[in-house]
Amino acid sequence: MVSFASDYVAGAHPELLGTLLRTNMEPLPGYGTDEYCDRAKAFIRAAVGIPDADVEFIAGGTQTNQIVISTMLHDWEGVLAADTGHVTTHEAGAIEYSGHKVIPLTQTDGKIKASTVDDYIAGFYSDENHEHEVFPGMVYISYPTEWGTLYTKDELKDLHEVCRKYGMPLYIDGARLAYGLASSACDLTIHEFAELCDVFYIGGTKCGALCGEAIVFTRGNRPEHFMNAVKKRGALLAKGRLLGVQFDTLFSSFPTDTGSGAAQNAPDTGSGTDQNAPGNECGLFENTLYYEIGRHGIEMSEKLEKILRDKGIKIYMETPTNQKFVIMEDSRLEKLKGIVEYGFWEKADDEHTVVRFATSWSTTDEDLKTLAEVL
Amino acid sequence: MVSFASDYVAGAHPELLGTLLRTNMEPLPGYGTDEYCDRAKAFIRAAVGIPDADVEFIAGGTQTNQIVISTMLHDWEGVLAADTGHVTTHEAGAIEYSGHKVIPLTQTDGKIKASTVDDYIAGFYSDENHEHEVFPGMVYISYPTEWGTLYTKDELKDLHEVCRKYGMPLYIDGARLAYGLASSACDLTIHEFAELCDVFYIGGTKCGALCGEAIVFTRGNRPEHFMNAVKKRGALLAKGRLLGVQFDTLFSSFPTDTGSGAAQNAPDTGSGTDQNAPGNECGLFENTLYYEIGRHGIEMSEKLEKILRDKGIKIYMETPTNQKFVIMEDSRLEKLKGIVEYGFWEKADDEHTVVRFATSWSTTDEDLKTLAEVL
Amino acid sequence: MVSFASDYVAGAHPELLGTLLRTNMEPLPGYGTDEYCDRAKAFIRAAVGIPDADVEFIAGGTQTNQIVISTMLHDWEGVLAADTGHVTTHEAGAIEYSGHKVIPLTQTDGKIKASTVDDYIAGFYSDENHEHEVFPGMVYISYPTEWGTLYTKDELKDLHEVCRKYGMPLYIDGARLAYGLASSACDLTIHEFAELCDVFYIGGTKCGALCGEAIVFTRGNRPEHFMNAVKKRGALLAKGRLLGVQFDTLFSSFPTDTGSGAAQNAPDTGSGTDQNAPGNECGLFENTLYYEIGRHGIEMSEKLEKILRDKGIKIYMETPTNQKFVIMEDSRLEKLKGIVEYGFWEKADDEHTVVRFATSWSTTDEDLKTLAEVL
Amino acid sequence: MVSFASDYVAGAHPELLGTLLRTNMEPLPGYGTDEYCDRAKAFIRAAVGIPDADVEFIAGGTQTNQIVISTMLHDWEGVLAADTGHVTTHEAGAIEYSGHKVIPLTQTDGKIKASTVDDYIAGFYSDENHEHEVFPGMVYISYPTEWGTLYTKDELKDLHEVCRKYGMPLYIDGARLAYGLASSACDLTIHEFAELCDVFYIGGTKCGALCGEAIVFTRGNRPEHFMNAVKKRGALLAKGRLLGVQFDTLFSSFPTDTGSGAAQNAPDTGSGTDQNAPGNECGLFENTLYYEIGRHGIEMSEKLEKILRDKGIKIYMETPTNQKFVIMEDSRLEKLKGIVEYGFWEKADDEHTVVRFATSWSTTDEDLKTLAEVL
Repeated sequence: MVSFASDYVAGAHPELLGTLLRTNMEPLPGYGTDEYCDRAKAFIRAAVGIPDADVEFIAGGTQTNQIVISTMLHDWEGVLAADTGHVTTHEAGAIEYSGHKVIPLTQTDGKIKASTVDDYIAGFYSDENHEHEVFPGMVYISYPTEWGTLYTKDELKDLHEVCRKYGMPLYIDGARLAYGLASSACDLTIHEFAELCDVFYIGGTKCGALCGEAIVFTRGNRPEHFMNAVKKRGALLAKGRLLGVQFDTLFSSFPTDTGSGAAQNAPDTGSGTDQNAPGNECGLFENTLYYEIGRHGIEMSEKLEKILRDKGIKIYMETPTNQKFVIMEDSRLEKLKGIVEYGFWEKADDEHTVVRFATSWSTTDEDLKTLAEVL
Repeated sequence: MVSFASDYVAGAHPELLGTLLRTNMEPLPGYGTDEYCDRAKAFIRAAVGIPDADVEFIAGGTQTNQIVISTMLHDWEGVLAADTGHVTTHEAGAIEYSGHKVIPLTQTDGKIKASTVDDYIAGFYSDENHEHEVFPGMVYISYPTEWGTLYTKDELKDLHEVCRKYGMPLYIDGARLAYGLASSACDLTIHEFAELCDVFYIGGTKCGALCGEAIVFTRGNRPEHFMNAVKKRGALLAKGRLLGVQFDTLFSSFPTDTGSGAAQNAPDTGSGTDQNAPGNECGLFENTLYYEIGRHGIEMSEKLEKILRDKGIKIYMETPTNQKFVIMEDSRLEKLKGIVEYGFWEKADDEHTVVRFATSWSTTDEDLKTLAEVL
Repeated sequence: MVSFASDYVAGAHPELLGTLLRTNMEPLPGYGTDEYCDRAKAFIRAAVGIPDADVEFIAGGTQTNQIVISTMLHDWEGVLAADTGHVTTHEAGAIEYSGHKVIPLTQTDGKIKASTVDDYIAGFYSDENHEHEVFPGMVYISYPTEWGTLYTKDELKDLHEVCRKYGMPLYIDGARLAYGLASSACDLTIHEFAELCDVFYIGGTKCGALCGEAIVFTRGNRPEHFMNAVKKRGALLAKGRLLGVQFDTLFSSFPTDTGSGAAQNAPDTGSGTDQNAPGNECGLFENTLYYEIGRHGIEMSEKLEKILRDKGIKIYMETPTNQKFVIMEDSRLEKLKGIVEYGFWEKADDEHTVVRFATSWSTTDEDLKTLAEVL
Repeated sequence: MVSFASDYVAGAHPELLGTLLRTNMEPLPGYGTDEYCDRAKAFIRAAVGIPDADVEFIAGGTQTNQIVISTMLHDWEGVLAADTGHVTTHEAGAIEYSGHKVIPLTQTDGKIKASTVDDYIAGFYSDENHEHEVFPGMVYISYPTEWGTLYTKDELKDLHEVCRKYGMPLYIDGARLAYGLASSACDLTIHEFAELCDVFYIGGTKCGALCGEAIVFTRGNRPEHFMNAVKKRGALLAKGRLLGVQFDTLFSSFPTDTGSGAAQNAPDTGSGTDQNAPGNECGLFENTLYYEIGRHGIEMSEKLEKILRDKGIKIYMETPTNQKFVIMEDSRLEKLKGIVEYGFWEKADDEHTVVRFATSWSTTDEDLKTLAEVL
């Protein structure tokens, strides 16, 4: 069986398992206070080019969204998000569970416009009764979006500016960030990306890790007693090393040998002002395993799209990242059964279905060949 | 550095990492719907001897407690727990975050008596104003307790009976269950244990796994739409395999070779009525890796206790499991610095501190030797 | 100053104050367990024609919505409501505070169609991933709607049917129920109204009371330990008599003298099967003070609409109830300053504003005359 | 029937009903923005002697506690309270519903000692793992306590100081404040009382109002967007006048005629710096109806205690306020049936019960005479 069902069908990138294995017997303190977590945070600060960013690791994406949003919002605030946003639709009400409203905004291809945000907020404050309503307190977007599309640098700048205008944070869900940044349609660097938002997370689960997301607070804006908030929400892993070791491996500069152990490539875990720290050199992010994973996924997705088009399959949504949405005859889908897995998206009509084919670091040319043969 | 700081200082038992490695590239469906999760659930049902038990995996202990308690309690109920209970004191208010009160009961050596529960509930209902109070809706205990002590079978029976009397579930937190069941002081089988409670969890994180706890609902009492509840609380892992593979390895019958792959030892994942399913044979639990882990931790802890006593160190709390609590001169603790790590518990007075030494599957005779030398 | 700003600009209908005064010194038990609460509940059961309905009093509307919705939904469910619904927009996130999502549906003139509900739910269940989403668990509508419009009996029947189809309750917010039922556009009786929903509330605050809403559970579906849920949400009044006395006065059959004291008009407070109980006779509801209040408000609103039309003011939304929405030149609004108050709704453009004129039981012909003169 | 069951057995003090009646038809803006609310706030600021205090009205006590505590605590904090405190035991988990823990402290006669608070907090911070626990974030006490006892000025000073030491607010629940301040055992003025805490509430419901409590934030520490927080918790009354008018009457200086209408006794509703504002003159509080209500309740309770003692009834708890706790033979209680009501407290043994007799503004000498006769 070959699977394009999602970008989390395989386990971890072998490099990550290798480091987990190598470091397995080292006794380490718990709850994310170990040296691998420290190293990984330093590597990430270097990679995103913000020396004083705060980095925190959480096991999964929905948990991350719940924690970031509920700790950064005030009691009276809700979060603005696309009506197709992950927090709006596919998190079983995890944001509402924390007592906050997701305020849905109209979108195009999964993206919300700065003007839509501006209009909403201006309208809100012009309403004399707004003290009776949920205050807009944050803008949530995802990059890539749930539809695999990407905001342009200009679009992000506009969102950044409207958030500045109203003094509210811009939060970017980067569950698939590797595939976004590695896309040929991406017109910004990770540093530019990080500067344009107030907080974002670097997705691990869908980009090569067994689990784990790295939240980056870019402006000294990590909520107070963050560890307590994580614990209170049930999300504090005793063996924080599981996340630290994986992100350490993902973000240490890409190794030519297998060594990414503690002694090598060590960034300054301190103040971040060390001139020699990795990440201050131009182009380092492109040397990370994380970027490499993104590149591989994108290359596979470009080949995948070509196969789909060559087979005359109708593209449902044009996307430059690792998810391809197509509309297919149910009879044709029937032929894939038992050979190729894909993701169900929605019924188009009685005879057609919108499906998703996703690639990842684990997709191989053979997988694509199998798909091409069966289609 | 040698560490007795906790039972989660090392990574995973090598067997678990081995299986993770072996199964890593298999494409699997997400969210705990893969075959390893199914297999692991079947093995656990067999091991606990309840063929129709419902088993669910969650990444960590506090998360597990929050989910079990908040989904099983009614809106008007709180959970009764020892005033030293983990949910009472060390979960940063995770239960209250879910909107429910932890009702503290007095305890002795970390254990609550059935009569204390009975008195509390009887008193509650005899109060004419009890509709204005939080109803007792569940009893929470841990086995071993936070103080490393164990309930006897008779004590569990009494708690079971008082819970029956009032129609409320008895929930047992088994974060360190392996060490409890493997203790020479344990006077019941895992089957008897399971039958005496309504829901419990089998701790993975502290018993050899990278992360993961297995909830066992023993009476067809798994809350409806449980997956949704897990998602809503942010706890649903995309790569559920991480938990499934580990518990599969922990609970498949203990292998003589390294093979615990999918083809071997497969229990019936269906109705659980197969007469040949593992677990129906007497003594199988003792063949699991999970039990083996517990045994090793206990053996090490017995040796540890002997060393401590031989060195004239005062035992603070007698415990038959893998945690040893002692009271030591601060000057003596000073000598351990940089050589042996231990867990801080509480200041006894200006010159003495209560500390904890914990053993686990990863403790070695050399670790003990180092400790003996430095003391 | 004359005010059409809302239907809660005055205190209580004098009859209600009269009864409060008359009963003031009687010692009564607290928390809604007094005889006036009992009597009021019996009168309401009679008035709505459902002898075994459960009736509960809450001080305000948002509180009522929060309590009803959060106690009737399961953990995994949210409430479907118009995107203009009060719970969606004007309750500061009170539903989300209780951990539940408001799922917004498109509406026309404030009303949602049964087909919209049906399509949403059918779409939800046809999505294979719906276990990751908030389940639709209740339909919330208001009668009259926030825009003053009314559902027809057929529209309610359709909504009732789609709710039956999916086994979920239909909840009607009747904050302004008196004005809805007294409207000439209303094509159903209160009994038919009650039968078509599973739970609704009879608005007191906007219909003559100082405060208070009466929830009616029509199908033996009052949540268990409801008093405890009310207390837990902070909404249990010690002097429940305040609500009981007012609703007793509103729903005892309309008195020709001032007497509505305890000895008169007493319905059977018991099982409700007494053939002579008020409410079993046709037309009794039309004799209640509650209906009288509605009638007066509607008569005033009809005169109000005539004045507005005669003055050439543009109606923004046609409505058959006590709220009239018009679009006016800001210059014209300027003239009202200090003489007539109205409700701001929203800016239409730079020179026009949508405003609301509301009538109520307290509106007088003189108020209307003042308005006509100043316009 | 005569009732000593509680201090909320009657309706409102006739003065309050009188003002409600007199102001009933005035059109007023909603949600607490009317002139009576403004006036009442100014009177209260004057009465407590803190010109820039923020005053807010809420309908009931549990609601008030929930709102104050949940808006003033940080996410990581809980509230310290006596294990007999109202928030600990008799609010159905309303604090936990808001996601915060009530941390119970041992008490004597309902009172917690400053040293108990200090020890708890010092112990908390000396625990190296305290980031995993609920931070103490506020101290809650009640005055009088649930047992009718009073803190002395020195005890309050000590609590105030320990709160200063740790930078956390001291919150006093004054549900029965009138009876506390009017007690002969009270050794401080309302001004001293107010200065010693950071926030407190002046109980209305149990001290003469139909409903209503007035929160006083004494240090410019009212939470931001407080109205929104009140709405979000369902507690915002549309007709805020109901609370404003009552507190206006309670706190305008005690009238010799019946006039307490808008034109009279008007304090400066502005900045509060007016030297002639009421309340800056010594002794004004003693002229308020609120104090008068307290005095009457206390006088009646003193007579009540004398009767009880004269009849040889055993005092269970010595109390200087309006609640008297006695222990009585069940046979003797039997004699009261149908003639005198009292409050059940708890069973003492098989033949005795602890009961409460409460007096209030509405208790009369005749009530006492009836009690004396039947005992």
